[in-house]
Amino acid sequence: MGNLDFAYPVAAGEKTGQQVVVPAPRPFVESLKGSLKETFFPDDPIRQFKGQPLSRKLVLGLQYFLPILEWAPRYTFQYFKADIIAGITIASLAIPQGISYAKLANLPPILGLYSSFVPPLVYAMMGSSRDLAVGTVAVASLLTASMLGNEVNAAEHPTLYLHLAFTATFFAGVFQASLGLLRLGFIVDFLSHATIVGFMAGAATVVCLQQLKGILGLEHFTRGTDIVSVMRSVFTQTHQWRWESGVLGCCFLFFLILTKYFSKRRPKFFWISAMAPLTSVVLGSVLVYLTHAEKHGVQVIGHLKKGLNPPSLTDLAFGSQYLTTAIKTGIVTGVIALAEGIAVGRSFAMFKNYHIDGNKEMIAIGTMNIVGSCTSCYLTTGPFSRSAVNFNAGCKTAVSNIVMAIAVMLTLLFLTPLFHYTPLVVLSSIIIAAMLGLIDYDAAIHLWKVDKFDFVVCISAYVGVVFGSVEIGLVIAVALSVLRVLLVIARPRTHVLGNIPNSMIYRNVDHYPVANNVPGVLILQIDSPIYFANASYLRERILRWIDEEEERIKSSGETSLQYVILDMSAVSSIDTSGISFIDEVKKNVERRGQQLVLANPGSEVMKKLDKSNMMEEIGQEWIYLTVAEAVGACNFMLHTCKANSNADNIV
Amino acid sequence: MGNLDFAYPVAAGEKTGQQVVVPAPRPFVESLKGSLKETFFPDDPIRQFKGQPLSRKLVLGLQYFLPILEWAPRYTFQYFKADIIAGITIASLAIPQGISYAKLANLPPILGLYSSFVPPLVYAMMGSSRDLAVGTVAVASLLTASMLGNEVNAAEHPTLYLHLAFTATFFAGVFQASLGLLRLGFIVDFLSHATIVGFMAGAATVVCLQQLKGILGLEHFTRGTDIVSVMRSVFTQTHQWRWESGVLGCCFLFFLILTKYFSKRRPKFFWISAMAPLTSVVLGSVLVYLTHAEKHGVQVIGHLKKGLNPPSLTDLAFGSQYLTTAIKTGIVTGVIALAEGIAVGRSFAMFKNYHIDGNKEMIAIGTMNIVGSCTSCYLTTGPFSRSAVNFNAGCKTAVSNIVMAIAVMLTLLFLTPLFHYTPLVVLSSIIIAAMLGLIDYDAAIHLWKVDKFDFVVCISAYVGVVFGSVEIGLVIAVALSVLRVLLVIARPRTHVLGNIPNSMIYRNVDHYPVANNVPGVLILQIDSPIYFANASYLRERILRWIDEEEERIKSSGETSLQYVILDMSAVSSIDTSGISFIDEVKKNVERRGQQLVLANPGSEVMKKLDKSNMMEEIGQEWIYLTVAEAVGACNFMLHTCKANSNADNIV
Repeated sequence: MGNLDFAYPVAAGEKTGQQVVVPAPRPFVESLKGSLKETFFPDDPIRQFKGQPLSRKLVLGLQYFLPILEWAPRYTFQYFKADIIAGITIASLAIPQGISYAKLANLPPILGLYSSFVPPLVYAMMGSSRDLAVGTVAVASLLTASMLGNEVNAAEHPTLYLHLAFTATFFAGVFQASLGLLRLGFIVDFLSHATIVGFMAGAATVVCLQQLKGILGLEHFTRGTDIVSVMRSVFTQTHQWRWESGVLGCCFLFFLILTKYFSKRRPKFFWISAMAPLTSVVLGSVLVYLTHAEKHGVQVIGHLKKGLNPPSLTDLAFGSQYLTTAIKTGIVTGVIALAEGIAVGRSFAMFKNYHIDGNKEMIAIGTMNIVGSCTSCYLTTGPFSRSAVNFNAGCKTAVSNIVMAIAVMLTLLFLTPLFHYTPLVVLSSIIIAAMLGLIDYDAAIHLWKVDKFDFVVCISAYVGVVFGSVEIGLVIAVALSVLRVLLVIARPRTHVLGNIPNSMIYRNVDHYPVANNVPGVLILQIDSPIYFANASYLRERILRWIDEEEERIKSSGETSLQYVILDMSAVSSIDTSGISFIDEVKKNVERRGQQLVLANPGSEVMKKLDKSNMMEEIGQEWIYLTVAEAVGACNFMLHTCKANSNADNIV
Repeated sequence: MGNLDFAYPVAAGEKTGQQVVVPAPRPFVESLKGSLKETFFPDDPIRQFKGQPLSRKLVLGLQYFLPILEWAPRYTFQYFKADIIAGITIASLAIPQGISYAKLANLPPILGLYSSFVPPLVYAMMGSSRDLAVGTVAVASLLTASMLGNEVNAAEHPTLYLHLAFTATFFAGVFQASLGLLRLGFIVDFLSHATIVGFMAGAATVVCLQQLKGILGLEHFTRGTDIVSVMRSVFTQTHQWRWESGVLGCCFLFFLILTKYFSKRRPKFFWISAMAPLTSVVLGSVLVYLTHAEKHGVQVIGHLKKGLNPPSLTDLAFGSQYLTTAIKTGIVTGVIALAEGIAVGRSFAMFKNYHIDGNKEMIAIGTMNIVGSCTSCYLTTGPFSRSAVNFNAGCKTAVSNIVMAIAVMLTLLFLTPLFHYTPLVVLSSIIIAAMLGLIDYDAAIHLWKVDKFDFVVCISAYVGVVFGSVEIGLVIAVALSVLRVLLVIARPRTHVLGNIPNSMIYRNVDHYPVANNVPGVLILQIDSPIYFANASYLRERILRWIDEEEERIKSSGETSLQYVILDMSAVSSIDTSGISFIDEVKKNVERRGQQLVLANPGSEVMKKLDKSNMMEEIGQEWIYLTVAEAVGACNFMLHTCKANSNADNIV
């Protein structure tokens, strides 16, 4: 056995002679600039400005904030024809929806029309999406009603309530624009898709429940939004139900759902479902006018003031005692609205293969709300349903928003008296029909299939909204999402790697059962950056892996454990706690008479190992470029030692 | 050129024939159990219970909660001798420190002695550390004073204040024990090392500043803890400074620092610095007694009640209007105390190579505080300084805590009158001398060298504590730490990989400048799990990489980009947003006429790709085990196509 010539091939087939290098040090300022840029300017917006003359830079800068300057010169008549059709289609949807959602927010119905006039014009100048149709949304309207309503009763103090709504819109706009200006758009990303699915479905359910008031023609209704209060309110007043109202509501609801279903089956007839709400309004109004149903318990909108948006800058209630409520409402509704607007803009940009700059969109949506709050509008964004209609109607640019705004303007100037006899129950039907589309069963089923935790987040948001309140649901869902991220950071995976036969590849033995252990060597892969939040967990877990491996070896009688290889490929970054972690693992492993080997540490890990003098402690000779090279070196040492000790035995 | 026989070696040297497999599906309950276990029971505490008879299980269970049952039978006289020496040493430190810290918390000095009697006994039963010496700590004392003091003035309502302190201690204990019972110990890990260094140094500075009152013999002092208030308070009262007090204080401070310095240089004489505080107390008391300095402006402790801890269960103020303050104080001080106790326990366990179970320690520390709050003690933990003395004195087990408790008990029973003449200025000197050790310049310098962001966190905590308040500093530091984790999640790194010459290895081209690009192929490595929080960033960033590569190619005239390989080695997990991200990148890449290829997706990624039907969309033939195999396949396709088109040209 005393074969002293034994020469184990060091990392055969993988030998590169390439050492793991410490990256060249970069000056502190430069590396700070680099990481700030990656964090806040990942899209590198000033790339196009480089090397341009000053005048060109000015033009580019203006175009950056007002994209209309960029695309208007290329605008053609062909585009205009398409945009006119799309604009008129969305206007016919915007008018009844606007009135309905304003009622939902406990605001005067005319505000819904105002809000479909000024904000779309602003967005058409500043927005970079070609498909977004601007308008009010049900969820934000409901949130405004519930958050402001907690402090001020809209029925008792309508003026104060109205002014607070403007103020909240102003702060929503300021908050949205600042997120964009400060390049903090990633905050919106923390509302995960699962959260939004659950939250939207819950909000849609709540909104539908609120419509029972209109459908059943009730005069008194709970101020709570949760299902328990609503059901109690509905079923304690059975004697107050108005059958006229109920029948009318169900008929229109049936009509709206039918047209929706039809348009979904035949996308060419998208305009049928788009026109249905306006048709319902006209039909309902005519019916009420002819039958004088308003005198038999069918509530109608009543008088709507003619004329364009009055200015409301002086109505902003900065001095009010409810200012904090307005700010809170503004921030919460602003974030929700922003999340919807950005998501909608991105989805359609994806379809048509153009690019949307999230931060720029935030500035556009924020400005539109700031301007809106000074011209009697409340919170607007790019609702999914309306944008989808815009897209299906073949819009080419934001000009469709301008067309819509002009249509709404004409309505405001000349047609408002026509809405006098519009029954509220038709508005309720329109809201319910729109809301049903927001309950996305398929998405929930997909979540359940793919990721159970996402499903739990989604259902928690739904249950929180429906049984608690909109705010509770939102807080639960965001907290769960963030908790999940923190859990992932706090509990990263570690895997034992094994050699895939006939190769130099090492992979997770759980995933590839063919992978073989290397005798005397334990290879562990750490699947995450090493941070203060997980360093102590990782230390415990790795020591447990070693314990378990030693126990297994003891019972099987294999070569005792001599080397512990940490595959650092996935450790993209490390902090000082992480460096201490490596130090502690090394000391612990050495106390057991084993050697710690690092494989493929990345540039940041190498830099920090070097700076903290850990490099010398570990020794450059125990750091390898690949797991295969590390295993090769360990095997070489194992066999040399064995050979030597065998030789000693013989002597 | 029309060489149709051209055969490019597919991944030569790396060819394994091993496909990337979808891991066998595990039943939902089993996989849920698995991940819950990894999250909450990473140390697998019930491993030892397996396959044991019931009686043995009971014994093991008892031993789990009362580790004394496990080690007491093995206790030897040898150990006892060592523990007696260590116990007496720490008692001599505990008595003056206990009195000083109780004064710092605005509590009656006797509480410091009470708190060094009961809690150490409880810990000795339940704790698993052999080196932790239990007692009160300066930072938690100061926090108690400042948080409770904001609501209740200790001088005006001493009884109410005392009861609130007990209540806060009770809730701190309940919170600590529940963290342990619910296996949520990882929450403590979110206090990073950098946070703790900055926070401790800041708190030490603040505590020292507070001692100016005692040193200068001032009677009126600000209630603020920030440096500005203290300095104003000190320098507006220059006429009130007492030189007797000042001289005495400076002498004792000099003596204490000298002994500390001496002991640090010669670790064998650890007992000199350990005994110094008691010596100072004795010297100071004798001096005052002989000179009657208490009548010349040197304040003394005064009467201390003889006797053991009175019960205080009925003093817990559950019905008080300040209950929420007490709960808040309890939670904040509890977490700080816990973080210190766990960190100290772990460090010494590391030294002596034994294991500490964090969750078990939390239960022990929590129980010790619950019992303490019912026996007139306030918040205790395992302070670093005292534990270090215990360790240096050669303690073997928690029996040293029992010895200390007995020494304190004897003091309480017989020696309290001796402290009547102890001057407060000596206590101030003791506190300052202890606090100076908490300001860890070296650690801060190390942070600066290794990780600039950690340094910023550390300095922010320090500045927040010193210029704001202890709570502000803590909130700033924790918020910065968590923000950093979230930023890491929201902005993961992506790298371009290149081929290291003469190998099949692909590495980051920034880190290894020798690595070469592969013509027509862009290889990107994603360095993090893909989540809702980073999916949209990653999508933008990857598309920008492709844009940049295409621009580079256009200017250099190389082979146009045909393949985009995503190296998924570091993507340890993925959620539904991550799956959509892959889908979107795929569609986008295809729209540009390129092909998306995945290399080495892990088991979780494969599982979710499969469940979401993305696998079929990408095609199993575009998923490879290694980057080398993926590049090989791309090259093969590139050359076949080229050969074919050349052949076409010839024909």
